[in-house]
Amino acid sequence: MEEFTFIDWIRSQTALDPASVPVGPGDDCAVVRFGGDLLLVTTDQCADGVHFILADCGAEAAGYKVMARSLSDIAAMGGEPVAAVATVAVAAGMTDADGKAIYHGLRRAGDAFGCPIVGGDVAAWANPLLLTVTMWGRPIAAPILRSTARPGDVVCVTGALGGSLASGRHLSFTPRLAEARTLVDRYAPTAMIDISDGLAADLHHICRESSVRVNLTAATIPITAAAAASPDPLAAALSDGEDYELLFALAGENAERLLADQPFDVPVTRIGGVTEGAGATIEMADGATRPLQPRGFRHRT
Amino acid sequence: MEEFTFIDWIRSQTALDPASVPVGPGDDCAVVRFGGDLLLVTTDQCADGVHFILADCGAEAAGYKVMARSLSDIAAMGGEPVAAVATVAVAAGMTDADGKAIYHGLRRAGDAFGCPIVGGDVAAWANPLLLTVTMWGRPIAAPILRSTARPGDVVCVTGALGGSLASGRHLSFTPRLAEARTLVDRYAPTAMIDISDGLAADLHHICRESSVRVNLTAATIPITAAAAASPDPLAAALSDGEDYELLFALAGENAERLLADQPFDVPVTRIGGVTEGAGATIEMADGATRPLQPRGFRHRT
Repeated sequence: MEEFTFIDWIRSQTALDPASVPVGPGDDCAVVRFGGDLLLVTTDQCADGVHFILADCGAEAAGYKVMARSLSDIAAMGGEPVAAVATVAVAAGMTDADGKAIYHGLRRAGDAFGCPIVGGDVAAWANPLLLTVTMWGRPIAAPILRSTARPGDVVCVTGALGGSLASGRHLSFTPRLAEARTLVDRYAPTAMIDISDGLAADLHHICRESSVRVNLTAATIPITAAAAASPDPLAAALSDGEDYELLFALAGENAERLLADQPFDVPVTRIGGVTEGAGATIEMADGATRPLQPRGFRHRT
Repeated sequence: MEEFTFIDWIRSQTALDPASVPVGPGDDCAVVRFGGDLLLVTTDQCADGVHFILADCGAEAAGYKVMARSLSDIAAMGGEPVAAVATVAVAAGMTDADGKAIYHGLRRAGDAFGCPIVGGDVAAWANPLLLTVTMWGRPIAAPILRSTARPGDVVCVTGALGGSLASGRHLSFTPRLAEARTLVDRYAPTAMIDISDGLAADLHHICRESSVRVNLTAATIPITAAAAASPDPLAAALSDGEDYELLFALAGENAERLLADQPFDVPVTRIGGVTEGAGATIEMADGATRPLQPRGFRHRT
């Protein structure tokens, strides 16, 4: 089962009432009307051997990661978290101390952003640890979707990309909730996503959902030290994923203000622009423009 | 890690603001204030080898069960469902058809009660299938808690108990949402829980949370045909669990009306009464009253 093919199939099966469910599967959060308000909801799982290696990172870091992923999804919608629930499928041999460490990790991420854990489910089984978090929040203003980038917009990214696995940043990243709030309050982002699958893949989500083309400029893509030390820094920045930075579009005049202000603790960088069309391209250092695949740019070797 | 010990520890660690989170961990759902409304939230996991045997029941039934468990939790709070999200940790060797069957099972349960699935997360791993559902809802009136049974109340149960695993009912039960609505609309239940761990264990949750004693009358406990065919029908009814029937307390005059009306498609039965004190007892057929343990009554053998 390929994840996005499956999500496409689910979307084809799901006739949601747009009055009660303005945004269904396929964005960083679902958006559901509840009473007079809009609810953002996201659910994420982190499994030992897939999203973390328990024996290497320990239970506390695993708890932090699964909670921080959901916080990053709330940020990507231009939201603020309200509360979360968690499930733990406890592996054989785990101790009370491990369970408490998971909870401490969940809390470390939640407490940093005022997101309490209000419930959960614990079950023991004879297989590796699997954690899930479901979080809900509220949009700061209107939800910022993947589907509303416009030709003429500028594309920016927070922080630097690549090498998340190598550096361990995928376990310790700071969800960009403060940055999302500033963007929404002052710079009117038109579309936004957090980079979990990698810049190239997540950029394709914006292109596809917004029915636009994005042209990246390779030389402008901010690259982490960990990615810079890798054999192919650009490929690492495009494809490693798990950066949990914000990738967003906004009008040119707002981008100019934002880039001049640099209002965040991390840099914000202009990496491309939106045009009519479909798909994504990347202008390389030699001036040649090439198609950008969702799995990233591949050198011809 | 013993589940309830762990939940106690979590509760001791969790200082929730009662204005924003009126009910935290330890009831069938958490209750969270959202805008001007109260949100009910529950999260459940179902794992191959623990909650179902995929090779025996198939993927559709697994999807149905995990969704139905959450619907049952919403019913137990006197609520109605609004929407749900699901996660799927896909086992090696599962096919597209399995994925679609899971979704069809989730939908079969959700569609029966107007609960759309608005999002989810799919990840592949090399271990058995694990599903989670997180569902939210709204209270029909006020949330019905485990902690508000009063001395003098009568204790009743919907349907019949025991043998759920043997009969396969744990995969095909109907969440008692319609019954919960009728109870809330017309009979003022004071405390309610759904029977997942077994009558004895779930009764202890009510006793403990409400700081009361409940006295059951063994001869009145409704027993399924599957449990009646077992070596110890009473023990099966008390301890098998996964009945997903409603266990609730209400004032004597309301109970009399309810028992005379029999307003449900399934019987409703008076099985005991609430007194001051702690713990639970059971009056046996020989007239002797014995302590009821959370794991059920054990014959002296």
